[in-house]
Amino acid sequence: MHLFASDNASGVHPDILAAVVAANDGHALAYGDDPWTARATAALRDLLGDVEVLLVWGGTGGNVVGLQTMLGPQHAVLCPDTAHIAVDECGAPERFTGCKLVDLPTVDGKLRPEQVLARLGGLGDQHHVQPRVVSITQATEVGTVYSPDEVAALAEAAHTHGLLLHMDGARLANAAVALDVAVRTFTTDAGVDVLTFGATKNAGMYGEAVVWLRPELAAAARFVRKQAGQLPSKQRFVAAQLEAALHDGLWLRTAAHANTMAALLADAVRDVPGVELVREPQTNAVFARLPQAAIPRLQQEAPFYVWDEPTGEVRWMCSWDTTPEAVAEFAAAVARAVTPSASRDP
Amino acid sequence: MHLFASDNASGVHPDILAAVVAANDGHALAYGDDPWTARATAALRDLLGDVEVLLVWGGTGGNVVGLQTMLGPQHAVLCPDTAHIAVDECGAPERFTGCKLVDLPTVDGKLRPEQVLARLGGLGDQHHVQPRVVSITQATEVGTVYSPDEVAALAEAAHTHGLLLHMDGARLANAAVALDVAVRTFTTDAGVDVLTFGATKNAGMYGEAVVWLRPELAAAARFVRKQAGQLPSKQRFVAAQLEAALHDGLWLRTAAHANTMAALLADAVRDVPGVELVREPQTNAVFARLPQAAIPRLQQEAPFYVWDEPTGEVRWMCSWDTTPEAVAEFAAAVARAVTPSASRDP
Amino acid sequence: MHLFASDNASGVHPDILAAVVAANDGHALAYGDDPWTARATAALRDLLGDVEVLLVWGGTGGNVVGLQTMLGPQHAVLCPDTAHIAVDECGAPERFTGCKLVDLPTVDGKLRPEQVLARLGGLGDQHHVQPRVVSITQATEVGTVYSPDEVAALAEAAHTHGLLLHMDGARLANAAVALDVAVRTFTTDAGVDVLTFGATKNAGMYGEAVVWLRPELAAAARFVRKQAGQLPSKQRFVAAQLEAALHDGLWLRTAAHANTMAALLADAVRDVPGVELVREPQTNAVFARLPQAAIPRLQQEAPFYVWDEPTGEVRWMCSWDTTPEAVAEFAAAVARAVTPSASRDP
Amino acid sequence: MHLFASDNASGVHPDILAAVVAANDGHALAYGDDPWTARATAALRDLLGDVEVLLVWGGTGGNVVGLQTMLGPQHAVLCPDTAHIAVDECGAPERFTGCKLVDLPTVDGKLRPEQVLARLGGLGDQHHVQPRVVSITQATEVGTVYSPDEVAALAEAAHTHGLLLHMDGARLANAAVALDVAVRTFTTDAGVDVLTFGATKNAGMYGEAVVWLRPELAAAARFVRKQAGQLPSKQRFVAAQLEAALHDGLWLRTAAHANTMAALLADAVRDVPGVELVREPQTNAVFARLPQAAIPRLQQEAPFYVWDEPTGEVRWMCSWDTTPEAVAEFAAAVARAVTPSASRDP
Repeated sequence: MHLFASDNASGVHPDILAAVVAANDGHALAYGDDPWTARATAALRDLLGDVEVLLVWGGTGGNVVGLQTMLGPQHAVLCPDTAHIAVDECGAPERFTGCKLVDLPTVDGKLRPEQVLARLGGLGDQHHVQPRVVSITQATEVGTVYSPDEVAALAEAAHTHGLLLHMDGARLANAAVALDVAVRTFTTDAGVDVLTFGATKNAGMYGEAVVWLRPELAAAARFVRKQAGQLPSKQRFVAAQLEAALHDGLWLRTAAHANTMAALLADAVRDVPGVELVREPQTNAVFARLPQAAIPRLQQEAPFYVWDEPTGEVRWMCSWDTTPEAVAEFAAAVARAVTPSASRDP
Repeated sequence: MHLFASDNASGVHPDILAAVVAANDGHALAYGDDPWTARATAALRDLLGDVEVLLVWGGTGGNVVGLQTMLGPQHAVLCPDTAHIAVDECGAPERFTGCKLVDLPTVDGKLRPEQVLARLGGLGDQHHVQPRVVSITQATEVGTVYSPDEVAALAEAAHTHGLLLHMDGARLANAAVALDVAVRTFTTDAGVDVLTFGATKNAGMYGEAVVWLRPELAAAARFVRKQAGQLPSKQRFVAAQLEAALHDGLWLRTAAHANTMAALLADAVRDVPGVELVREPQTNAVFARLPQAAIPRLQQEAPFYVWDEPTGEVRWMCSWDTTPEAVAEFAAAVARAVTPSASRDP
Repeated sequence: MHLFASDNASGVHPDILAAVVAANDGHALAYGDDPWTARATAALRDLLGDVEVLLVWGGTGGNVVGLQTMLGPQHAVLCPDTAHIAVDECGAPERFTGCKLVDLPTVDGKLRPEQVLARLGGLGDQHHVQPRVVSITQATEVGTVYSPDEVAALAEAAHTHGLLLHMDGARLANAAVALDVAVRTFTTDAGVDVLTFGATKNAGMYGEAVVWLRPELAAAARFVRKQAGQLPSKQRFVAAQLEAALHDGLWLRTAAHANTMAALLADAVRDVPGVELVREPQTNAVFARLPQAAIPRLQQEAPFYVWDEPTGEVRWMCSWDTTPEAVAEFAAAVARAVTPSASRDP
Repeated sequence: MHLFASDNASGVHPDILAAVVAANDGHALAYGDDPWTARATAALRDLLGDVEVLLVWGGTGGNVVGLQTMLGPQHAVLCPDTAHIAVDECGAPERFTGCKLVDLPTVDGKLRPEQVLARLGGLGDQHHVQPRVVSITQATEVGTVYSPDEVAALAEAAHTHGLLLHMDGARLANAAVALDVAVRTFTTDAGVDVLTFGATKNAGMYGEAVVWLRPELAAAARFVRKQAGQLPSKQRFVAAQLEAALHDGLWLRTAAHANTMAALLADAVRDVPGVELVREPQTNAVFARLPQAAIPRLQQEAPFYVWDEPTGEVRWMCSWDTTPEAVAEFAAAVARAVTPSASRDP
């Protein structure tokens, strides 16, 4: 059964799986001293420039490792209140770094430079935490994307005041495809300092990369990764996936497909009476509002997350392996759920 | 090239790899709501009793998650000063739990009940951390094993004074084989409270299990796992490995082979002049003392870890896939390194 | 010179100072095993019922100690975004407890039960921190007070869902006087679980009390206090102050005076053109909006904190030792600052 | 009754108490913006050179603040296993900094450079915590003192390998008097980087100073102090004590007296049969071994700490206000306890 609950419900692309299988070739030194890691690192440098790269197990771990390398004890992180680090990591950043996250409201999941500037009044005052990192997600948790200019404006606001810019790129590929620009334009070139480079949700099995676009920030990174429980032992199997994904643009093709399927799903439900699209999908997420009664009915057929209980807002995610047929079936299920037939509710 | 540096240098058993490949079958709910996780959990319950099980990425993460569920802020962990949690996790337990580890010296990596009892003088005194967990490793980091009675004696010492017993089972299978008893005899039946059940070093790709033998200790475990960055997203691929390993005793056969190869290696080097076995190998590790000059020579041929610099003690690990031929070759390299020929040092 | 910057700018009441001097009487056991501590504890029990009491150095420390005793690693604290714990403690709660503070907006510094209820959607979901404590300040940081019914409603909302209610009572006495009720009515009787009982700002020299109104929550409290660096060594000197303050209602008289002076100051500036009272003072704080240019002029004469830069909102605090004359002088300075004479700005 | 349990059992020197009383003079800005703090800071600079100074509530807090300013997340602290930070602060350093303390055995409470050097093997290895601070106590917890040369040798060992030297100076004055040298010779001049300057145990009421002898290490110190709950609000009362203590050498005279009384006590008990002095007192502590049965008998008369249960080692502390008469009385009680008369144990 095809699931629209999360892009983590999808499987692994055959090419990536084949790379995992191929990596099972005799012995290799553990903890990253292996040729696969070297090649994956090189591929990320081709993409992003002269960066430091460390592979990690997962997205939460990657965010925590990246953030910790930028934070002293007195520091705080400014982020949207919809950020994965703010709401979906069970407090991992606070637990591990001990630093406060200042969660800021947004209309579309995107932080604005004015919001950053408005929180800098306490800089230098011993009573207040000191903002040090601005953290944004690209694409955001609500499926929107920052343009390269928007990222650059945030980076400039941050850097002007001694802050750094972190990008959670769990769905970086979907953003790159949506923007139709090279990923470098909204990362390296836009002034991002540290990036979590997502792979799992985009047709991978497990593993992400933390990328320091300013390598000098990575001085303690290896220790922080180990301390965070994020150092893969048989690391070649993570690296092999990343190498395969980055080979010949596979990672962009899988993301493009997921985005296309989301557009298809939006089209398929947009005119269903009772369904209201929250916004046009830019990436692989469709956000819609349903009548309250329709939600459990639809969830019985196919599980998904309710995004905002009171307003009936729900989230449907498409994946690299979502088929047009699955979209059509799900859209039909949506239609059934919002207009229950007499036969189903006798 | 075959490596004796770490059992993490080995590859993945074909049956386990096949299980990973087979698990790539369409969509499945993420974060553990999948049939593979259900089956792996059931297999562990068959083995260990009515336990709580959570899958995690790695051993350090598993230890941290398990320990945290037993610790309040005032608590301390008593452990051997050779423990993985004490020396090989870059301070992850202290960083994540904030609790002190009290590292105790041992002659053979094994903690004794008297050592536990000798550290309880400060119980109830507000100036001192309160010992709450005794943590042991089975098999230990120096390759020795606790007998079921030895574990039981530690459990009794701990429980009598309100402490709990944690077992880091990164090489649990090697210990079970060495002891030639059911794993339950030195875990569930011996009074262990929380267990890290190792899989990766024993022919797996990635992933371990944290097992609460007292399920009531796991009340907050799911949150702690997520917070520790140890919740696998596409969890079916971890669970599939564990299921395959536990199927029909595969995990014991792979461990038994590794142990046998260590015995073979010990035999092959025991009479080489200049090589001194530190102790007879009980599991898959061989510890030996070499002349200082021989160490770098041998490392040039085949990397391995120096265990104790001043005494020239080194560690060689065997794996599920170590071959008798590889052992013979390595033993020959050892012999060459300790007795350099005139031609090599002209 | 009299200061309206903070009630921490005031001195110590003569009776409290005399108690400190009198306590310097030979030797006494350290760390709380002294008769002064026993008597101060008894006085707080007279006031609040069958409670656990620990003395600490300061308010931030007291809050951190109280909160930690209620929090496991997975927990979060819900509090107003104006709370001292949220903005004025440099992140001490996050640093020490590792737990997230969820800062909620309010119009008047007071949290409402609906806000608590609205944040409980994620209870039981492993991805989200678990709200465990509702923390309020009485009187609030903006000088308002919760009625006993308002506190009780928050306690009920909290307890119904397994949460606890913490009260930061740095200015508890000012609230009691403003409400004209016994302090027990809005603490013990209203369902507060843990209370920081303020003393320093209310005519003391140093030291506060943490009070567990549910004593079973204090099981680990002594250890947590020590670990937080909040165990006074020569504790008799803290206890003597508290004993003196609680003797014969002194602590309420000093607070009443401060409140009266704030009312006097509000009256003295309310009709000055250019000055806008933000709200009628209920306790010892006056919040007013001034023309931007007037603020630095007035600060040059007498330092005080700007509460909200963009709107020109400032805070003036009155103390137990504020005199009507000082109020009149300060009001005159305010008048001068908002209407600069030709002679001052030629 | 005079107590030999702790120097914290003593009262406050009249000159210091008078300074506290005199500081209660009208209003003063809180949090250190007051003339008393400026003067106390100047006095410490006279003593120690061009240093950064922050006042804190207590010794544990001071140690935690000082250490945190030197530590990143990957770092560890090397210290004697008798160190106050290791055993008497209920894990405060680990809790607050998240860093591991590596507790090293000593014969006399004093760390040796070789011990430091022996722990540096893992520098640069991602699996191991990175030693960053060597922490010593002067005078040590067992009453011994480091000579200026011994401190300098530790500083050199530390600095050579990129580590820093921290000195817990809870009893710094007692050490200075014992060594009969200027305090600068074994702090600033010997290469100490951060110092906790003790005041309370040496005739003060409360409050200590953290001194950064390398001021550049103090960049984040104010924030760390606040975050640690160690920022005194009405700070003038702390500063006034320090100013009075440093005035005209009072702090050295009080310490000298305490040391003299310890020597007197040692003399008074040295020949009592059954009493064995552990070592000649260098400062204000007397360590002796008593017959096990004598300990509770003596504690009934006068409380004190048992230092080592199995060997019957006890600790007696003398203070600035210990009198020769009190010493004589206590020595008589010791004699009675070790040779119980027939009348007492019929």
